[in-house]
Amino acid sequence: MNFGMVARVLGNLLLIEAAFLSIPLGISVYYQERGAILGFLLAMGIMGLIGLFLANVKSKSSRLKAREAILIVTLGWTLTSFFAALPFVLSGSVPNLADAFFEATSSLTTTGSTVIPDVESLPKGVLFWRSFAHWLGGMGILVLTLAILPSLGVGGLQIFKAESPGPSPDKFTPRIVATTKILYTIYLALTIVQSLVFRWSGLSLFDSLVLAFGTVSTGGLAVYNDSLMRYGSNNFLVYAVAIGMIMSGVNFSLYYDLWQRRFKQVTVNSEFRLYLAILLVAVVLVSIGLYGKVYESLGETIKQSLFQVSSIMTTTGYTTADYDRWPSFSKGVLFLLMFVGGSAGSTAGGVKVIRLLVAAKVVRREIAKTLHPQAMTPIIINGRVASSEVVQGVTSFYLLYLAVFVIGSLLISLEGLDPFSSMSAVAATLGNIGPGFGNVGPTATFAMFSPFSKLLLSFLMLVGRLELFTLLVILTPSFWRE
Amino acid sequence: MNFGMVARVLGNLLLIEAAFLSIPLGISVYYQERGAILGFLLAMGIMGLIGLFLANVKSKSSRLKAREAILIVTLGWTLTSFFAALPFVLSGSVPNLADAFFEATSSLTTTGSTVIPDVESLPKGVLFWRSFAHWLGGMGILVLTLAILPSLGVGGLQIFKAESPGPSPDKFTPRIVATTKILYTIYLALTIVQSLVFRWSGLSLFDSLVLAFGTVSTGGLAVYNDSLMRYGSNNFLVYAVAIGMIMSGVNFSLYYDLWQRRFKQVTVNSEFRLYLAILLVAVVLVSIGLYGKVYESLGETIKQSLFQVSSIMTTTGYTTADYDRWPSFSKGVLFLLMFVGGSAGSTAGGVKVIRLLVAAKVVRREIAKTLHPQAMTPIIINGRVASSEVVQGVTSFYLLYLAVFVIGSLLISLEGLDPFSSMSAVAATLGNIGPGFGNVGPTATFAMFSPFSKLLLSFLMLVGRLELFTLLVILTPSFWRE
Repeated sequence: MNFGMVARVLGNLLLIEAAFLSIPLGISVYYQERGAILGFLLAMGIMGLIGLFLANVKSKSSRLKAREAILIVTLGWTLTSFFAALPFVLSGSVPNLADAFFEATSSLTTTGSTVIPDVESLPKGVLFWRSFAHWLGGMGILVLTLAILPSLGVGGLQIFKAESPGPSPDKFTPRIVATTKILYTIYLALTIVQSLVFRWSGLSLFDSLVLAFGTVSTGGLAVYNDSLMRYGSNNFLVYAVAIGMIMSGVNFSLYYDLWQRRFKQVTVNSEFRLYLAILLVAVVLVSIGLYGKVYESLGETIKQSLFQVSSIMTTTGYTTADYDRWPSFSKGVLFLLMFVGGSAGSTAGGVKVIRLLVAAKVVRREIAKTLHPQAMTPIIINGRVASSEVVQGVTSFYLLYLAVFVIGSLLISLEGLDPFSSMSAVAATLGNIGPGFGNVGPTATFAMFSPFSKLLLSFLMLVGRLELFTLLVILTPSFWRE
Repeated sequence: MNFGMVARVLGNLLLIEAAFLSIPLGISVYYQERGAILGFLLAMGIMGLIGLFLANVKSKSSRLKAREAILIVTLGWTLTSFFAALPFVLSGSVPNLADAFFEATSSLTTTGSTVIPDVESLPKGVLFWRSFAHWLGGMGILVLTLAILPSLGVGGLQIFKAESPGPSPDKFTPRIVATTKILYTIYLALTIVQSLVFRWSGLSLFDSLVLAFGTVSTGGLAVYNDSLMRYGSNNFLVYAVAIGMIMSGVNFSLYYDLWQRRFKQVTVNSEFRLYLAILLVAVVLVSIGLYGKVYESLGETIKQSLFQVSSIMTTTGYTTADYDRWPSFSKGVLFLLMFVGGSAGSTAGGVKVIRLLVAAKVVRREIAKTLHPQAMTPIIINGRVASSEVVQGVTSFYLLYLAVFVIGSLLISLEGLDPFSSMSAVAATLGNIGPGFGNVGPTATFAMFSPFSKLLLSFLMLVGRLELFTLLVILTPSFWRE
């Protein structure tokens, strides 16, 4: 293991994070928040020192193999989450370290679960950092999906149709750099457009910005205690956020296809079509449960249904209504969406639609095999045969996701919550969604959990964000054997 | 499709079922139950007439291909369940047809869920039939798994290590006939031994017999409204039933190995070891939740924990305590066991331990692959390499099981129960277990459901019993294309 190189990359990552802290620091300076200013400066100092130290560690070679890449990705996300928590603690906003780590991990992994019952009392700078960390996390995920995860065979899907770069930097081809630039341009453009639209709907500049950060990154942390419920009757805003979330759950490469006028590529994309189909069906099903029971008007029913469906399926987690009080059937549909997620190559978390597509085709083939055991029909995704490696990767991902979900739910049930609350707390964090049901429903927070459970749930956010395998392989003994 | 041959086999099946009805008829004659006697006689008459008619349908050839075998198995289980419901209706014991069909399907599929709040008011003959149908169903499952399912590649596991017989009767080799005889001998021996032990514990002859039927078949329908709770303090009986259930969840071929003094074969069997390990871990985990909170004495804790763990994991469903009032953690462990099930080649339902073993090894391999994408280590089960067909069969089974569970739970949630009750109602029927949690907990019944939901849950029992693929392939259009 080339620990020197790992340390140097992590050191640079910390220095970048410290630099980014200057933006919320500026906000706190503008709003004259003394405690927050001190917190940000202290955090930047600590991160700068540790970052500089790590960045100057000597390493024999600059080569990175798969092992180092995996370690960098996992430690990188863990460390940046830990240091992102420093301003919370040092500003006095969230004095408890377990709480601050939960909140920071929730921000960076674009989960959106919170342990702070009264966010409105936080300094503006800290609120900005919470949402800005979403945005940085979403950015990080795009790099991750593009440059690192596919080359490791994680999920096994060649998400961006790019040639797999090897994990060593010299193989980082110009094409990948170009694609990264395109993605960031799209990400930035979506953020700007959303901010403007939200501002146009009547929100303050600050609120528009943090809402755009939370939407484009499918994060979902809000700056009000009731999430977006206060805006429930602002139809324009509700639809704008819903459409914003749906757009953020689409594979970003499709926007590039649009830009290049390759409209056919977009309309025939199997994952995109299934993504829209699931959204549509879910909205209809949830509405069936709501119409005439919770909402009298069809317009209100569809609006609320569309918003919650988009929010949960794209793993964002904003709420405009207390869906925990909706009928069982509507809640059941929303709970299921927690296991769908957005598209691959988007900022959304969860299992992802493309895996659902592969899994559905695998099951269909197996049913057909009952009749024709010898038949070996290939699995076709977007007009191409998916290799058996890819298929195995997807089915294993499901099994592992289920196993992590189940073990997590059991451990959380030690807290004594009812089973559905426990399950939804785990589904909401592992899927990087945000709120769950019952005790962790849209009007509640994760504050009641013990420090152990908070760390466990933070760990699950990281596990989900890194698509399970990247993080879990580090826990196997063979990873550490040379 | 050779419909003539299908009709003839089904006709014979009905005639056999009618013949078996003479035993509960005898019980009703002994107890002088006029309504029940009439019900049994009428049912036997109807089944005899229809059976004779079907058995004499002309068919061009006597060949059975995979398609016909699948149709026979599925229609066979559905029809025998339907006709098993006739005595319930015609005796006036369960006048509602949906209720009677639910109860009969629950009996034959060895599920053990009930819609009858007051079973104690039923005639003895009808009670006997309910439990005897368990026993016949358990028997049928053995024939099924042995003679038909392996040849269809269902699940892909060569359960009895026998060569796969072709689906045509002429390929029914003497070796298979011999194995069938051995299995029935084991089944009968277990039944007799259990009856004697239960009788010895103080139960009446009638109670001992029906309890043995329900235990050896992992059925779980009781003749008292409180299941076995009245015997909760009869330690001998509680442990006897627990051990009986555990023994019935073991692959029956291991008993033959024991008989042949191949002890090594038993002790090294991976599924058997995992089966016992899961039981042990589950008992410890459930006990942790119970000790000092629900039960003061350690002995009582372990006894109740062992009983419920064995009952749910082997998909039997007897209860000696209201586990729905146990702490969340203990309930969570029991809920999880609903997705484990017994061993392949036993009378137990559910996913089965062997599939869990394969799935665990698949996931472990995939985690290792993150580091070494090129490495292709084989999956070893019981010292042999599992083919990729088997592995795909197992992972697909999990995905399909999950899909059926999820869709079923959604449909059941339309009844307005809380989500956990809905989920457990589906898990309990699909897994052929019996009681669930909450509204369908150990002190409740399935009586509150609408006729639609009762039929849906009955359908799920059949789907689970036939290991999903056999039944679901019939619903695909390509099954019906020549």
